[in-house]
Amino acid sequence: VAAGILTLTTDFGADGTYVAAIKGVVLSRAPGTQIIDVSHSIAPQNIAEGSFVLAEVAEYFPQGTVHLAVVDPGVGTDRRLIVVRVRDHWFVVPDNGLISGILRRDSHHSGIWEIRYVDPLPSGISWTFHGRDLLAPAAAHLLLGGDPLDLGPALDKVVRLEEIEPKPDGDALLGGEVIFVDRFGNLITNLLGASLDPAAPADWSVELLGRSIDGLNSTYAERPPGTLVALIGSSGRLEVAVVNGNAAESLQAGPGTSVMLRRSRRKAP
Amino acid sequence: VAAGILTLTTDFGADGTYVAAIKGVVLSRAPGTQIIDVSHSIAPQNIAEGSFVLAEVAEYFPQGTVHLAVVDPGVGTDRRLIVVRVRDHWFVVPDNGLISGILRRDSHHSGIWEIRYVDPLPSGISWTFHGRDLLAPAAAHLLLGGDPLDLGPALDKVVRLEEIEPKPDGDALLGGEVIFVDRFGNLITNLLGASLDPAAPADWSVELLGRSIDGLNSTYAERPPGTLVALIGSSGRLEVAVVNGNAAESLQAGPGTSVMLRRSRRKAP
Amino acid sequence: VAAGILTLTTDFGADGTYVAAIKGVVLSRAPGTQIIDVSHSIAPQNIAEGSFVLAEVAEYFPQGTVHLAVVDPGVGTDRRLIVVRVRDHWFVVPDNGLISGILRRDSHHSGIWEIRYVDPLPSGISWTFHGRDLLAPAAAHLLLGGDPLDLGPALDKVVRLEEIEPKPDGDALLGGEVIFVDRFGNLITNLLGASLDPAAPADWSVELLGRSIDGLNSTYAERPPGTLVALIGSSGRLEVAVVNGNAAESLQAGPGTSVMLRRSRRKAP
Repeated sequence: VAAGILTLTTDFGADGTYVAAIKGVVLSRAPGTQIIDVSHSIAPQNIAEGSFVLAEVAEYFPQGTVHLAVVDPGVGTDRRLIVVRVRDHWFVVPDNGLISGILRRDSHHSGIWEIRYVDPLPSGISWTFHGRDLLAPAAAHLLLGGDPLDLGPALDKVVRLEEIEPKPDGDALLGGEVIFVDRFGNLITNLLGASLDPAAPADWSVELLGRSIDGLNSTYAERPPGTLVALIGSSGRLEVAVVNGNAAESLQAGPGTSVMLRRSRRKAP
Repeated sequence: VAAGILTLTTDFGADGTYVAAIKGVVLSRAPGTQIIDVSHSIAPQNIAEGSFVLAEVAEYFPQGTVHLAVVDPGVGTDRRLIVVRVRDHWFVVPDNGLISGILRRDSHHSGIWEIRYVDPLPSGISWTFHGRDLLAPAAAHLLLGGDPLDLGPALDKVVRLEEIEPKPDGDALLGGEVIFVDRFGNLITNLLGASLDPAAPADWSVELLGRSIDGLNSTYAERPPGTLVALIGSSGRLEVAVVNGNAAESLQAGPGTSVMLRRSRRKAP
Repeated sequence: VAAGILTLTTDFGADGTYVAAIKGVVLSRAPGTQIIDVSHSIAPQNIAEGSFVLAEVAEYFPQGTVHLAVVDPGVGTDRRLIVVRVRDHWFVVPDNGLISGILRRDSHHSGIWEIRYVDPLPSGISWTFHGRDLLAPAAAHLLLGGDPLDLGPALDKVVRLEEIEPKPDGDALLGGEVIFVDRFGNLITNLLGASLDPAAPADWSVELLGRSIDGLNSTYAERPPGTLVALIGSSGRLEVAVVNGNAAESLQAGPGTSVMLRRSRRKAP
């Protein structure tokens, strides 16, 4: 088997000892693996942000890529570790919703397995570092072309993050939060906007941190520089931005900031 | 063709989704490419800093290396994307001056080509992310040993950054700026000092942020610790430093800080 | 010879020009080397922190891995550069104590060599960047399967950092310092605790930054959230932590912070 590609997405920080230990374990078990760091700066224990980043990036990698992601507030509890196969990509993650973004884009997975066994077992399995002791060996097994059933039994379903999808004629008030800040300081939320009609912006207003934004825009360019705007972005999510500016800095907002979507006007009957 | 080496120099930040997407595209098109991150911390849209970093680093890589650099304030305008070949290295960049540092060190390039076509075309080409949709596919084409003429026509010249080279008998006042801060907090400028004579330091003074430095030193070691000094550094550029200290922190200076070089005394006739 | 693995641990910062230059030199001399960044965020010139990180991580990599580490306050002085072989791993480092953590875990090395020659010589050897000009070529030599004796003569011993190991019946007051802050903000010190008895916590107290902690705990879980605790951690070292909190932030502590271990009570006769 040709050496495969492993991507890593974690909240460990790039420069501690944790990421390097995972890489060492993978290279010891699956020599020649090409390792690509996606991000180690996911906000600590922010599953929604990890899920978003993984889903934005995975599709660009070749078929057969193994994606290892660790944002794991439940380490040491009985949350499961799982392998999920989607369109010939493998995902090795805690079963806490981290796979949600992938499955929202591509709901047909071709298999879920629980990780119960790795072979060989590490000399010791820590209670706090399953990324190194279980997920990395499981990823190496897949990188070597191993059968996921060697790791544990097939499962029917996985934990999914609550996704908040407002309906045009639905609730008048919906609460979500910022899940990612991009390099321009745009605030990307967990409020999905696919079914909203940006041609009728007056129907909706957005509130965060005491600021109110009337109407949804369809692009950044419609409003003067410096204006705070809300729009449905390229990822299909409600985003808050400052035209030609940095919303995260202006509002002191970031992952976890609460965002309200309010119907400002009843639809005409 | 043996898998090649790709270096990446951008202002994207290491931990967003942009860098990983570029890597995925390259690995999907040119499997086995070895990817080396030079920097993703170029100050946003600071072409001079990107040009400096690229020129400091490229020469250490093997012949045949492809260097992809993206600092691209003009994305979405009609600025061109280009390939430049210099001494058996390939550079894939926006044509906005990013290649200037390379060409200042090594003015004989062996070809410039415009990037107009990539094959296969990505499923969609965004208006804001040519790094992923055009530069990464072009780099992959070169990594596979492809002909640059497949990408577009040969060009005669490229955009160059203004470089400021004072002459011993030239203007009495020259303005430049800091383009890079190194790990010691030394401030490296776009003022070239090759033709200045550090043996005659009293001829020149340097001003920045309301501070004045009389004379150019030839090394750090001549002055007491804590002294603010100006010198011609190893890259042939005017640098401002604090002996055994951190000039960037002391002066609160960084990329973009204005620096004036003033002739403090007429040369003897 | 199959291409080998090189790990890098430095205080250079990930995003300057220094790390990329080292990678270029290695890839020019030993094509195909797989390069893994451990950390480039060691606190500047903090040898103890570099030694700790290297020792925490190296064991997870395969046999034959070459570990290049540069934290080198003595660059330009007559401190030696060395190669140390321990359990089929190669370490290429300045001889300033950086190897101490490795040798404390595994005191039987199988060879020490001084680095005096590299072949081919770089076109110029800078006084300030031996990492690029000497250590990187030496690492490439080993990655190609070269004999360490080609680099210089065998040595008998290396510089070791002072390690502070309190004895149950030893001095009543011992001073050490924080050498590493982990991702949870736990403060890991250079005070070794293997011979202390956490079952007799009342024997010891710990002081730092004007705070006093009575007694050593054996785990985090024994005390209420928010409590400042001292314990012997998984690395066998005295650690200071806040239960479910971040000690580094709470105390504004970091590498170099002084820590005192005081016997609070005479042992029973």
